[in-house]
Parts: sequence; C-alpha cells; structure tokens
Amino acid sequence: MANAQSAVSVIAAKRDGGELRDDQIDWVVDAFTRGAVADEQMSALAMAILLRGMTRREIARWTRAMIESGRRLEFTDLPRPTVDKHSTGGVGDKITLPLAPLVAACGAAVPQLSGRGLGHTGGTLDKLESIPGWRADISVPRMREILADPKIGAVVCAAGADLAPADKRLYALRDVTGTVESVPLIASSIMSKKIAEGTAALVLDVKVGAGAFMKDLAAARELATAMVELGSDAGVRTVALLTAMDTPLGRTAGNALEVAEAVEVLSGGGPADVVGLTVALAREMLAQAGIHDIDPAEVLADGRAMDQWRAMITAQGGDPYAPLPRAAHTETVTAERSGILARLDALAVGRAAWRLGAGRTRQGDPVQYGAGVEIHARPGDSVTAGQPLLTLHTDTPDVLSAALDDLRDGYAIGPDLVEPTPVVLDRIAP
Amino acid sequence: MANAQSAVSVIAAKRDGGELRDDQIDWVVDAFTRGAVADEQMSALAMAILLRGMTRREIARWTRAMIESGRRLEFTDLPRPTVDKHSTGGVGDKITLPLAPLVAACGAAVPQLSGRGLGHTGGTLDKLESIPGWRADISVPRMREILADPKIGAVVCAAGADLAPADKRLYALRDVTGTVESVPLIASSIMSKKIAEGTAALVLDVKVGAGAFMKDLAAARELATAMVELGSDAGVRTVALLTAMDTPLGRTAGNALEVAEAVEVLSGGGPADVVGLTVALAREMLAQAGIHDIDPAEVLADGRAMDQWRAMITAQGGDPYAPLPRAAHTETVTAERSGILARLDALAVGRAAWRLGAGRTRQGDPVQYGAGVEIHARPGDSVTAGQPLLTLHTDTPDVLSAALDDLRDGYAIGPDLVEPTPVVLDRIAP
Repeated sequence: MANAQSAVSVIAAKRDGGELRDDQIDWVVDAFTRGAVADEQMSALAMAILLRGMTRREIARWTRAMIESGRRLEFTDLPRPTVDKHSTGGVGDKITLPLAPLVAACGAAVPQLSGRGLGHTGGTLDKLESIPGWRADISVPRMREILADPKIGAVVCAAGADLAPADKRLYALRDVTGTVESVPLIASSIMSKKIAEGTAALVLDVKVGAGAFMKDLAAARELATAMVELGSDAGVRTVALLTAMDTPLGRTAGNALEVAEAVEVLSGGGPADVVGLTVALAREMLAQAGIHDIDPAEVLADGRAMDQWRAMITAQGGDPYAPLPRAAHTETVTAERSGILARLDALAVGRAAWRLGAGRTRQGDPVQYGAGVEIHARPGDSVTAGQPLLTLHTDTPDVLSAALDDLRDGYAIGPDLVEPTPVVLDRIAP
Repeated sequence: MANAQSAVSVIAAKRDGGELRDDQIDWVVDAFTRGAVADEQMSALAMAILLRGMTRREIARWTRAMIESGRRLEFTDLPRPTVDKHSTGGVGDKITLPLAPLVAACGAAVPQLSGRGLGHTGGTLDKLESIPGWRADISVPRMREILADPKIGAVVCAAGADLAPADKRLYALRDVTGTVESVPLIASSIMSKKIAEGTAALVLDVKVGAGAFMKDLAAARELATAMVELGSDAGVRTVALLTAMDTPLGRTAGNALEVAEAVEVLSGGGPADVVGLTVALAREMLAQAGIHDIDPAEVLADGRAMDQWRAMITAQGGDPYAPLPRAAHTETVTAERSGILARLDALAVGRAAWRLGAGRTRQGDPVQYGAGVEIHARPGDSVTAGQPLLTLHTDTPDVLSAALDDLRDGYAIGPDLVEPTPVVLDRIAP
C-alpha cells in the first residue's frame, strides 16, 4: 500500500504536468526494477511522460536511475581511447560492420553493446550472426582483452541482462502499451545503455525519413539534442549526425546480404552512400576520441580496416573466409518501363525484407540469415524496361507474393533526372 | 500479438487525440474483461483518456460496453415504477438510509446496488451492516420480491460480480495507477453500474466541496452533465442535484452513529440539513418516477417512512429494534473559547472517522461499526468555552491522538455571525 500510494503520487505529479523530483525518479525506477512498482503503474506513468514531457533535468535523472538499476562498465584503464557509434535504426544500415574495424584500425577502441532487430529495421547482431561461428555472448574480461589488443580493438556483443535492466523491462512494456513514441523515453533508453557500456565518447547516427523512426527533421533534431545533452551531462563526449533514411542505405537489406556488402566496402569498393557515411562517422568518432592525425578514408582504401575486420570476426569465433548463407529461393522485380528511378522507399524495402524472413515479429523469433532484398538500381540511376530492379531472397517462398505487394508502390520510374540528395543532413554538438 | 497490436492501435489513437470508433471501444473493453488486453495496456489507455478526454459519443459507447461485459437487471414488469439515487460520496452522507424507505412509502420501488467505503467517505453497505443481522447479499429473485411488496419496496444490496465486471476490474486498476480523476471514466463507471442495476429512473447527488471528490462547482457540473447525458442516452430518466460537501452532513460520521441519526430522521426529528436533503431528493425521485400526488415531507413526519424502514431492514435479516454497536472508547474535543463556530471541515472529520476505524484503507479490510465522530455544534452555532464540540468513538484508543491531529485545524471559532449556506447548489436536467 505504501508503495502503491507512492507510485500513485509520482504518476499523479507527472499526469498533472509537474516536474518529478530526483527522489521520485530514483524511487520509481528502482521500485519498478525490483517489481515493487507494477507494470500497470509504470505504463500509466510512461503515458503521462509521453503526453506531458520531461525537462532536461528529469531526463538526465531518469537515465541515471536506469543506469544505476544495473552494472556500469568501465574502460578508462585501456591504453587507447574508447568511442562508440549508435544508430537509431534504418533499412540497409550495415554501417557498424565496416565502421567498427575501421575506427579500431585508426587507433581507438570500440566497445559496442548492440541489439537484435525487431520489425522492419535489422539488428547488427543478426547480421554478424550470419557469419559462420560468430558469437554475440562475450564476457566482460574477454571484451576488455579484445579492446586492449591493437590488432582487434573492436567488439560488438549483446548487452548482458545486468546492464540497465530497468530499461529492458521498460522497453518491453512500452512496446505493448503505445508508449514508445516519446523523445524523453527514447533518449533515456538509448543513452542509459550507451553510458552503461562504458564508452568515453559516442557518435549518434539519428535517422530521419520515411524508413526511420523519426519521420521529420524537427523530431529527429529534438531527439538528437536530448541524447547529446544526456551524454554530455553524464561525462560522455557525444555528437550526433542526422542522416537521411528515405531510401535504403546501399544495395542490400538483409543479414548475410549486408555482411557481403560490408566486406565489399572493406575491400575498397561498395556503394558510395555506404562508404561516404562510414567515413563521415569514422571522422566524427576519431575526433571525439582525440585522434586527429589519421585519415579513415585511406585506412579503408588500403586494406588496414579489412585486416582489423578479419581479426575482430575471428576474436568472436567467426570465420571471415567462410561462405555466407544464401537463401534457397529468389524472385526478381524488373523495370516495367525505361526511364530514371525516381524513388525507392526504405520502408517498403524494409517491410519486404522483414516479411522475407530477414527480420522478426517478436523478440526471440529466429531470423533467416540469407533472406532480404538486393537493390540493383538506386534513385537517380537510368533503367531500361525489363532490367532487374530488385532481387528478393527467402527460404520460405510462400511469402514472396506478400513481399512483392510491399514493393509494388515502393518505387517509381519517371522521365526526369533526379538530383542526388545528401546522406548527412545536420550535425548536433553540445 | 494480434491482440497486442490491436490494443496498441487503440491506445495510440487516443494518445494522439483521436476519437475512438465504436468497434475499437467494444473490442478493448471486451478484450480487457476476457484478459486479452493486459492491465498495463488498459492503464496506459486510461491515462490517455484522462489526458485527452472523450466525446459524449465515446463515453456513451464506453459505458454501454462496460454494461455489456456482464448481466443487466430488468424490473420493468414490477407493478410500481423503479427509481434509485446515487451519491458521489460525502462525509456523514447517510441520506440513502431514510430516503430509500421514504420513497418506497410514497409508492415507488427503489432497487439500489451499493458499495462499501474506501478512504474517508463511508459506504452505505457498511452503515447498514452495523445493524445486527442485516445482510447485503440478496439474490436477484429475492430482490424482485422485496421490490414488488408495497410494504417494503426498497432494497439496498451489494452488486453481484456479474454486474459490469469490466468496471470492477477497471476501477481497481485506476485506483493504483493515478487514473481515477477523469470525468469520462468516473461518469461511465458510476452510470454503467446504475444502468445495469435496471432502474428506470435515477437521481444523482453530486457532492461539491473540500470533503467531496469534486472540489469545485464547475468540475461537479461537468461530471453531473456527463452522467445525466449517459443516463438519458441509455433510456434511464436521470437528473442531478449538486449539493454542498464542505461541512459534514448532519451530526454524525461513522457507521452505527449514522444509522442512529437516520432513525432519528425517520422518527420525525434529526438535523435540518439531513431532513432537508432527504426530502429534496425524495421529491426529485418521485417526480422522475411519475408520482406527483404525495408530499414526502408528510410521509417522513407521520411515521410511514419509519414503518417502511423497519420492513426493509427486516427483509434483509436485520433487527431494527436491536441496540446498535457502540465503540469501547470515546474522547471529547471541547471549545477552547466562546464564539460562533465558523467552520467544520468535512475532509478533516472524514479523515478522523476513517482513522478511528469507521473506514478502510484497502478493499476487504474490516471496519469498526461503532467508530466515528459525533458533532455537537455545526457552523453558525454559538459555543461556550469548554463546551463539547466533537466526540470521537473508537475501539482502538491508540489511534485517538492521530484523529485529534486530523481535527486540530478542522474547525474554527470566531466572533462573527455565520450565514447559513444552502445544501442544494444546482440542478442538472437533460
């Protein structure tokens, strides 16, 4: 009863538009973690936060309380500076794969705790798990060894259950209660995990557009600003790039398909947008890490990043030379007329890839490593009637017609030249 | 997953300020009753409703859905018109006790499903249960027999679990999630039970003031209007009186203490405010029932209402002549100076009575039948230094000092004459 009464008083304070005190935030997050504040109480509070907002001070304290609900890693004793990148999620966003070894090859350590995908945006762990032998469960002592080794220096692994457990419980609850779409709750969820993982610096890639969680630049800027403030307030050097997510990144969406594309980039090739964004984010990460005397574009081009990639995959049990899984069935979408590809919708491609088996509907569902969409033409490219535009890959051919439906209105061919649009739209620094 | 997704879409529609469709309301209330919509989803929706509101159409549909979650009683075949009264809850509000037999003595049938108290306002069932032998659990066939009998004609009993079960679950949830204070949810909660109980007409007593749930006239008018609209839309002739609840009603707050006062009123005596409000509500009820040729003031004064009371108590197993329980300990508060009693706060008296044992903190807790507060002077009365103002009754004397603390600032004695304030403040008709 005392707890119920306290929970009600915290909920009522936010419901009525008030600012929560530090002790109220600390109590409610801790009690929720312990199970003393019930799910139905936390979801009512989450809805009140969504509709009433939180001040910068409240968001910072909420984030701190979520970090303190579990373990906070610490890598300040490493011989090299730590820096990580976090993306809010996009279609074909395989940037972490070439970026982490590239930044490690430039002299920083990259301690990335990552997640699995849900819905139409894939997860970095799912992509890496398509590499035969690769494992996401790395102990903290082993993580430290990898980071300290200048030949590896990057680790991408699953966050342990003891890292911001309040956020894990809260995120699962928000997912089923219509309370995901809150800038304070999104910002504190992302940043509590990133601060707890022990990185000294962080570059955020906040996606904007139809295929992203944030549909417009104003909302993305608000989220980026909140996260940069949170990082800075917690002593993590943080900067954010706002990047376009109207069109998928690169030429693939799907786990093994994206790994193959990342390997192309590490070989000095690959699509221009993926290379460009990888180098732009690497520059930001190195600047945050205080490394100014090395050009990541060169390190990518001359094969040093590829050496680092092979060491990084090997360190987590993977075979960087093994053939990647391929789906059993393919289906090709061809251009119905000649012209210029005017648009290719990230959301349509993401949904199709998810439906083909590359993504999951529920946490814990398996994914098909070979499934996804290959993109043969990107907006601005000339196409000829009958030429392949997209290839769909799946092990379960019964989903092909639904995936084709997803893609039907997902692209357009027109007569006019299409201006290339920039990938990086804005930069938010403290 | 399908259900979770549907629940999220309903929550999101209300969260974003939309109007819920009939099929969304029907589905979510039904699924909640079946357990297919989880408590944490319903509490998020309740918070969204609280902060976004509902239209008249939405409230009517929501109420209908809650009624249809269970059984709806039907008394249209009775030889006499049915009419009920509902009070939103006040301190010392024993009006149902003399009112139900009075209206029955005037020729109407009163089918009242009532509740037990929670917090500082008492429940009618708790009051009646202080009468030795009286039972609240009456079957529907027996209820019908009592109502059809012109010598009894009134029944006050506990609502069965099958009456608006969605409301029971929702109310318990709102109580712990800070979502009680929503006019649409309060109105639909009260009216779903009153419509389901099968009365053809209803008079609402909406309390206003420091001791009531609604603190100001505007909020009370909004609630009363919503409930009158709901009743009318559902075919129940409904009218509301807004009545003052700054001072306790009458001279007692506590179960057996209030029964004794009700018996005084039925004997032709009793405090003027209790008699006045009883007669005013009786007139409204008789008008709603289409009975215009009888003056309830006369029926109260000449003992006919008392005969009906005795029959009504006897019909539910009670002994109307048995001595009422008395508390083991009393403590008297005396006037510290001479003057005019300027105010006596309903909330302070209600809290003291609750703390003395007359009320409960949690559903299912027992109450002390003899506990409560006796009021020897009311605002406007002259008092002399040393004269008793209040007598506290309890079986648990260790709570006396806390109850005295509740009352310390709960009254004031001043030099000036105090204008009497009216009990009935406004009337809301369709």
